[in-house]
Amino acid sequence: MAQHPFPIETVAIALGDRSYDIQIGAGLLARPETWAGLPKAQAAMIVTNDTVAPLYEAQLRTALAPHYKQIHTVVLPDGEAHKDWQTLNLIFDALLARGCDRKTVLFALGGGVIGDMTGFAAASYMRGVPFVQVPTTLLSQVDSSVGGKTAINHPLGKNMIGAFYQPVRVVCDLDTLKTLPERELSAGLAEVIKYGPIADMDFLAWIEAHIGALMAREPAALAHAVKRSCEIKAWVVGQDEREAGLRAILNFGHTFGHAVEAGLGFGVWLHGEAVGCGMVMAAELSQRLGKVDAGFVTRLKALIERAGLPVRGPVLHASDNAGDYIAHMRLDKKAVGGDIQFVVINGPGQAAVQGAPDAVVRDVIDACCA
Amino acid sequence: MAQHPFPIETVAIALGDRSYDIQIGAGLLARPETWAGLPKAQAAMIVTNDTVAPLYEAQLRTALAPHYKQIHTVVLPDGEAHKDWQTLNLIFDALLARGCDRKTVLFALGGGVIGDMTGFAAASYMRGVPFVQVPTTLLSQVDSSVGGKTAINHPLGKNMIGAFYQPVRVVCDLDTLKTLPERELSAGLAEVIKYGPIADMDFLAWIEAHIGALMAREPAALAHAVKRSCEIKAWVVGQDEREAGLRAILNFGHTFGHAVEAGLGFGVWLHGEAVGCGMVMAAELSQRLGKVDAGFVTRLKALIERAGLPVRGPVLHASDNAGDYIAHMRLDKKAVGGDIQFVVINGPGQAAVQGAPDAVVRDVIDACCA
Repeated sequence: MAQHPFPIETVAIALGDRSYDIQIGAGLLARPETWAGLPKAQAAMIVTNDTVAPLYEAQLRTALAPHYKQIHTVVLPDGEAHKDWQTLNLIFDALLARGCDRKTVLFALGGGVIGDMTGFAAASYMRGVPFVQVPTTLLSQVDSSVGGKTAINHPLGKNMIGAFYQPVRVVCDLDTLKTLPERELSAGLAEVIKYGPIADMDFLAWIEAHIGALMAREPAALAHAVKRSCEIKAWVVGQDEREAGLRAILNFGHTFGHAVEAGLGFGVWLHGEAVGCGMVMAAELSQRLGKVDAGFVTRLKALIERAGLPVRGPVLHASDNAGDYIAHMRLDKKAVGGDIQFVVINGPGQAAVQGAPDAVVRDVIDACCA
Repeated sequence: MAQHPFPIETVAIALGDRSYDIQIGAGLLARPETWAGLPKAQAAMIVTNDTVAPLYEAQLRTALAPHYKQIHTVVLPDGEAHKDWQTLNLIFDALLARGCDRKTVLFALGGGVIGDMTGFAAASYMRGVPFVQVPTTLLSQVDSSVGGKTAINHPLGKNMIGAFYQPVRVVCDLDTLKTLPERELSAGLAEVIKYGPIADMDFLAWIEAHIGALMAREPAALAHAVKRSCEIKAWVVGQDEREAGLRAILNFGHTFGHAVEAGLGFGVWLHGEAVGCGMVMAAELSQRLGKVDAGFVTRLKALIERAGLPVRGPVLHASDNAGDYIAHMRLDKKAVGGDIQFVVINGPGQAAVQGAPDAVVRDVIDACCA
């Protein structure tokens, strides 16, 4: 086999005996070295959805064939609406029907929903089997495949039931992003942009300079964006695996974004779209709390807009929109005893978690909703 | 408050940052010191069942009142048949309906089923909240409340979905055993007896000398039996928390016992009853493999019988009983690639895990079933 022209980048996630590598590169699915050294087992189970399966399932199956005697596949319905117990149980049904033992390796082939559900299934099946993330969306490559958060939704709340459970490897094949719908590419960029204001203003400047290349899906630009995002997230998660403190800064834009998603009904706006306008609101809040200047807010807003994302929040309630936002935010998992916790920018490249006076939050919402 | 006449015994479970204490004593529910020093939270949620709730829920609620502003209770239907997702979800429903945050402390008040379900709910709710085990059966005091195994059943297999998740404390109030049905007391003694042949022949001799006192529920005898069982289990689990090797010896009698439970239908025989005759079969297998003498088997069998437990397995299949047992054992979670793993006694007080020729296993089953 000829040398592949595009290098493989690796980000090491250091979590003691739960450490693992993220591999980033073009054409990884087809490269034999990608799949070397995984845990030995009789059987592998590919978990994917009905959108991704026709695109990449055969390729992954071929790649895994030298390593596992049996390769099973379970195809779930696509979409956040199916991130529930009923769908999760399809994975358990398949594992048990095929007599899969506690060494079976699960492969999550798809976006964040597939990753979350496969991860929770792996955490829970026989109290834990190994799993590999093969994220095929930008969002899952830069965010949900790093950090070991797995979950399903409950009718009364998103991601309410889950586990902290680390994969044994993450394989980010940039070629899989070629088939990503435009809207999902933008949604992924929201999480890429996020890492700038909370941790690395040089990276923010790099994104501003390369937003065109990213929107055009140029592999070199995507590789750097994915790698740097994973590095920053790894640095944060490495210090706070179970979200006792620092890790919460990764939720920049997510508190307001959560209200958008919950208020409109989950799935109406993509998560990344809600985070897009949520970051504008969180930046606006930071400014009103005297932590950043107006120029910072304008700059961030312009980049979010160039990434094809909404910069204004939707109106959730005709007469008391701010009240509706606040009510949703109080129910957020991150609220403590009913007090909403916001990630604010303490200064460019530095974030902190804190409460804020209701009146200020109301002003922000009033100023930022269309 | 007057000094309580009966001392509190403590067994420390050393698992690094997941370490916890098991408290053992009479009247612990009502003693304030039992509940000191638990994690602080706004809310506690007592999880119990419709048999235990009328007996002890009010007492626990009173004891917790000084520590938590809100104390909620969810009452589940009693029995192994309800150890499923639908019932587990009642806990999540209650937590979410009451707006319980990720600091909420769960209290498992009941037997092994309540402990398993509450533990898995605690492991999964918002990816992990603290929980306290308050086991009210002998079986759960000596076995299922130590070691962090939590799970629910799946229609295709028992304990197939769960987590390794440690409680922050275990409170074994020996007074709660006064209300235990006779049959469940015997079932609990099966797990007590188990610790002798696998780890401590002195303890086996002590049980033989005190089986009458144990059957009469004398607190001093119960306290020693619970304490020594927990110590042995703690010693084993401390060396192998996630069941990579040594921990499997705790399954002495459980491979054959699993076939009995699965073959008759779960719940027809109590788990401890199946383990009772399962230990006789495992001892018989050990003898046929040349590891112990006939006297050892006879001695163990006599004690199991004195504990009020069955010493012969049921006939699961009229024409091919041994084949039926073996088929069930192959589906056991502990089988690896279809090979049944047996816990055998390598010599009095020493256990090992190994396979065995089908012909020998068949002979054992033929010899040991009524």
